[in-house]
Amino acid sequence: MTVDRNHSLYRAITEAVMDEIKAHDIELVHESEHYVPVSVSARHIHLAQAHVDILFGKDYTFQKYKDMSQPGQFACKEQVTIEGTKSQIERVRVVAPLRKETQVEVSRTDAIKLGVTAPVRHSGDIKGSAAITIIGPKGKVYLQEGCIIADRHIHMSEEDAKRFGVRNLQKVKVEVDGDKAGMMYNVTVRVSNRYALDMHIDTDDANAFGIKGQEYLKLIK
Amino acid sequence: MTVDRNHSLYRAITEAVMDEIKAHDIELVHESEHYVPVSVSARHIHLAQAHVDILFGKDYTFQKYKDMSQPGQFACKEQVTIEGTKSQIERVRVVAPLRKETQVEVSRTDAIKLGVTAPVRHSGDIKGSAAITIIGPKGKVYLQEGCIIADRHIHMSEEDAKRFGVRNLQKVKVEVDGDKAGMMYNVTVRVSNRYALDMHIDTDDANAFGIKGQEYLKLIK
Repeated sequence: MTVDRNHSLYRAITEAVMDEIKAHDIELVHESEHYVPVSVSARHIHLAQAHVDILFGKDYTFQKYKDMSQPGQFACKEQVTIEGTKSQIERVRVVAPLRKETQVEVSRTDAIKLGVTAPVRHSGDIKGSAAITIIGPKGKVYLQEGCIIADRHIHMSEEDAKRFGVRNLQKVKVEVDGDKAGMMYNVTVRVSNRYALDMHIDTDDANAFGIKGQEYLKLIK
Repeated sequence: MTVDRNHSLYRAITEAVMDEIKAHDIELVHESEHYVPVSVSARHIHLAQAHVDILFGKDYTFQKYKDMSQPGQFACKEQVTIEGTKSQIERVRVVAPLRKETQVEVSRTDAIKLGVTAPVRHSGDIKGSAAITIIGPKGKVYLQEGCIIADRHIHMSEEDAKRFGVRNLQKVKVEVDGDKAGMMYNVTVRVSNRYALDMHIDTDDANAFGIKGQEYLKLIK
């Protein structure tokens, strides 16, 4: 069937269709209006047992400084110094529990200052990442790889994922209000029933978008 | 006139309207695809004559280090130290020519480190901005106000503004690709025939979005 676009019905039906589209749009907007709390991760280090032994002494036990948003994770009282080709950064917090592989998470500001070419990666994906030296009270470790800029990500439970209509490893966008408003793309959704709902960004994203932490940001699929 | 939305014409005309909307959208997207070059501004200081006299000595003449993107502006060989309530930052570049009022531009990362509560402002709008101390080779100045975080802005000529369909002080959005892709909102357009086309962002925005400078970013109205 062909349509005469000059037909008198055309304008009237166009208006009716536009009303429907508008109504539909509004519904879609409401559907996707989900907010997630955000935490700011300062530079920190996850340690493997072999490196704990060197940096702090054989089977050293870390002391809790404070709990973090993910159940079972805590920042330790202990800190290390990290060193790149250009400079050192002192007082880098150890995060427990121990991991299979040592991983240093820095911001790009830190990476430039240190003189390390850290790539943006998911936590745990350290293959071919930047080399860095770690200095503890009892010793020093040269890591051939392990220094990354953590990607922006949102931890959530399976129930949260269902509610938000997203799946594990999906990339979403997150919108921020304020003087330094904007939108972050490439935010990775990480789903597990071990996770509490929380978005993690580094200090560069926090400072660029004027985020202090504890804010609720808008998740956009 | 009322429309029977069950009429057989409805679906056919809906499709015709959707085709038109789609065609129109595509056209709009093309129309607004404008790209602007971006420069990254590190922390720097603009000085007033009275403060030059104190910091560097009476009628001191600055030496050019390198030209900047805006005609007539240049970074000087001379540097100062800035000091907040928590710490100092050394080697802060002086930018010439002199201004009526001294202004220190820092990133939020700097502001946190220094311990100053610098607001996000247009350059020149320093009323009620943060206090800061400036230390030069010949003396020290305590500024009651003058320390800001410069807003994201795009310098352009009247001809560029016409071409992009934007006006002076309009807020636009700018989209960034890459690992740390996203969109900056609240980007101020600054139009003058003294300006060369260039977007200015601070090191926080650069590092959060993975921008090195010299990239072309997409302007969105």
